[in-house]
Amino acid sequence: MTTTEHGLVEPLGPAEGRALLMTAEIGRLAFTDGHGPTVEPFAFALDDAAIVLAVGARSGARAAVGQTVAFEVDEIDVVRRTGWSVVAVGTLHRAGPEVRARPEPWPDTVDDGERALLVLTVERISGRRLRREVRRG
Amino acid sequence: MTTTEHGLVEPLGPAEGRALLMTAEIGRLAFTDGHGPTVEPFAFALDDAAIVLAVGARSGARAAVGQTVAFEVDEIDVVRRTGWSVVAVGTLHRAGPEVRARPEPWPDTVDDGERALLVLTVERISGRRLRREVRRG
Repeated sequence: MTTTEHGLVEPLGPAEGRALLMTAEIGRLAFTDGHGPTVEPFAFALDDAAIVLAVGARSGARAAVGQTVAFEVDEIDVVRRTGWSVVAVGTLHRAGPEVRARPEPWPDTVDDGERALLVLTVERISGRRLRREVRRG
Repeated sequence: MTTTEHGLVEPLGPAEGRALLMTAEIGRLAFTDGHGPTVEPFAFALDDAAIVLAVGARSGARAAVGQTVAFEVDEIDVVRRTGWSVVAVGTLHRAGPEVRARPEPWPDTVDDGERALLVLTVERISGRRLRREVRRG
């Protein structure tokens, strides 16, 4: 008898995705700047279903205001190849006074000038759980 | 005397970015599928300066062939808020016979059908080192 190990990708529903999003401290914003697509890590806070970022004056993410962007969080065990990833998609805009969440301004820079609060209004959330399964045959 | 701790974002040059890319096992591909922007983690291999992925028949990344995409790798200490991130940008296409790199097919699925080798020809690489600095004042 031999055993083989396979990776399994299981889709996660929006409720599970939201629950996992709440466990993360840092996510990766995928947007388009003047040079094309890019990805930058940010700390974030949740304001109801919205994702709130505090970005510096020179952050490339300011160029993404008005864009439909993706914000990814994950937790991956690189050695065992297990974990999960969740992607929230929506429009990025400047926070209005109704936004009360105050995310940690990270990454920050000492001379970063005035920070802006940006809000990703989540229109769609999806995710995947990455498992391993041993099969005997 | 008080001390304050600041985060510093230092840009990395292409050579440093390439060196850090070589240390990573898993990266995150930012592309656009039928629903809009999305991000998916993948194992990868390097073939000279190109990034090679082995994706399953049902992987959303197949929709990205022909697109300009971003592939991000990072190593972030979430507790200390230190680390680095690197982004490689270029066009994604199917691998020709000249591509010899054989990346681990991850994430894989048991019934994923025939895999395709996709190649990101890197046109631009950039990165940032994320440090903390204590200032006394």
